[in-house]
Amino acid sequence: MSVQPVPGPVSFQLTEAITVLERTPATFLALLGGLPEPWTTCNEGPETFSAFDNVGHLIHGERADWIPRARIILQQGASLRFEPYDRFAQVRESAGRTLVELLDEFTRLRVENLATLRGWNLTEPELDLKGEHPDLGPVTLRQLLATWVAHDLGHLAQTARVMATRYREAVGLWRAYLPILDRR
Amino acid sequence: MSVQPVPGPVSFQLTEAITVLERTPATFLALLGGLPEPWTTCNEGPETFSAFDNVGHLIHGERADWIPRARIILQQGASLRFEPYDRFAQVRESAGRTLVELLDEFTRLRVENLATLRGWNLTEPELDLKGEHPDLGPVTLRQLLATWVAHDLGHLAQTARVMATRYREAVGLWRAYLPILDRR
Repeated sequence: MSVQPVPGPVSFQLTEAITVLERTPATFLALLGGLPEPWTTCNEGPETFSAFDNVGHLIHGERADWIPRARIILQQGASLRFEPYDRFAQVRESAGRTLVELLDEFTRLRVENLATLRGWNLTEPELDLKGEHPDLGPVTLRQLLATWVAHDLGHLAQTARVMATRYREAVGLWRAYLPILDRR
Repeated sequence: MSVQPVPGPVSFQLTEAITVLERTPATFLALLGGLPEPWTTCNEGPETFSAFDNVGHLIHGERADWIPRARIILQQGASLRFEPYDRFAQVRESAGRTLVELLDEFTRLRVENLATLRGWNLTEPELDLKGEHPDLGPVTLRQLLATWVAHDLGHLAQTARVMATRYREAVGLWRAYLPILDRR
């Protein structure tokens, strides 16, 4: 346990954000690569994501969300409005593919997208440029990039949780000490 | 999204459990190795775990929890009662150490402990042997080993969450779409 006080708002730093973004593919590969299928396909019920689904969802984000939306903001064209995001696109896009293929593709796309991001050499004023989220309204490039990081970590946590949930019954009385088993 | 029904109780399989246990150190290393310190020391307030604390806690489990408790069960001696577990032991044990040292130690201890576990060649009747948890009461070796897996995954999810929480404010309006930022 650390002795720091409750963290206050943390200012977004691009280089620091990239250190997390660049580790995500290797983290998923270490967690999931070569695992028996029951661990990677189990989910928490209808319309919930398995580990496999989480990786497919992250791939869709690389193609359709983060960098495309950043481009819309940076171009400051006639419309700043983002395309709505399809949270279930991976059902189509991952069909018939193996988890190894998805992990490879995610790794490749993330490398390319971070090269694009670094190549922009974004300035602080550029990070404050705005786009329009179709549901949420006005958002900045800085917020979009912070969301990319938090979204990665959220799907890592979700993947760990859905795997743990397989043993909800198997742990017996320890269930009372494992809040992850009853979280959604 | 997978099309499986809601998963029912899953029977514990030792070899399948080990496939998760053996991946945990590499997963934490991929996630945390070389990260700037603000990511690894931030926590969620008093008595909460940073990423650094999570790794220290996992180390303490390797030393004091899983294999020592399994031995108590397997020996079926005069007392089947486990020692109480100190959830904050890592405050002492990790003091002054670097995260790299902790990740190395966790990796080494986990390799040793899984070698011990595999070497036991546990039978189904042995997996049903009982010990006594100091608070929960009677538990089986099978439940202890399932708990080891769920505990790993719980601390992976907790680590991802505490890191994500750094950007709770930085994501702006996206906070409404990122439940991980307001979970404890």
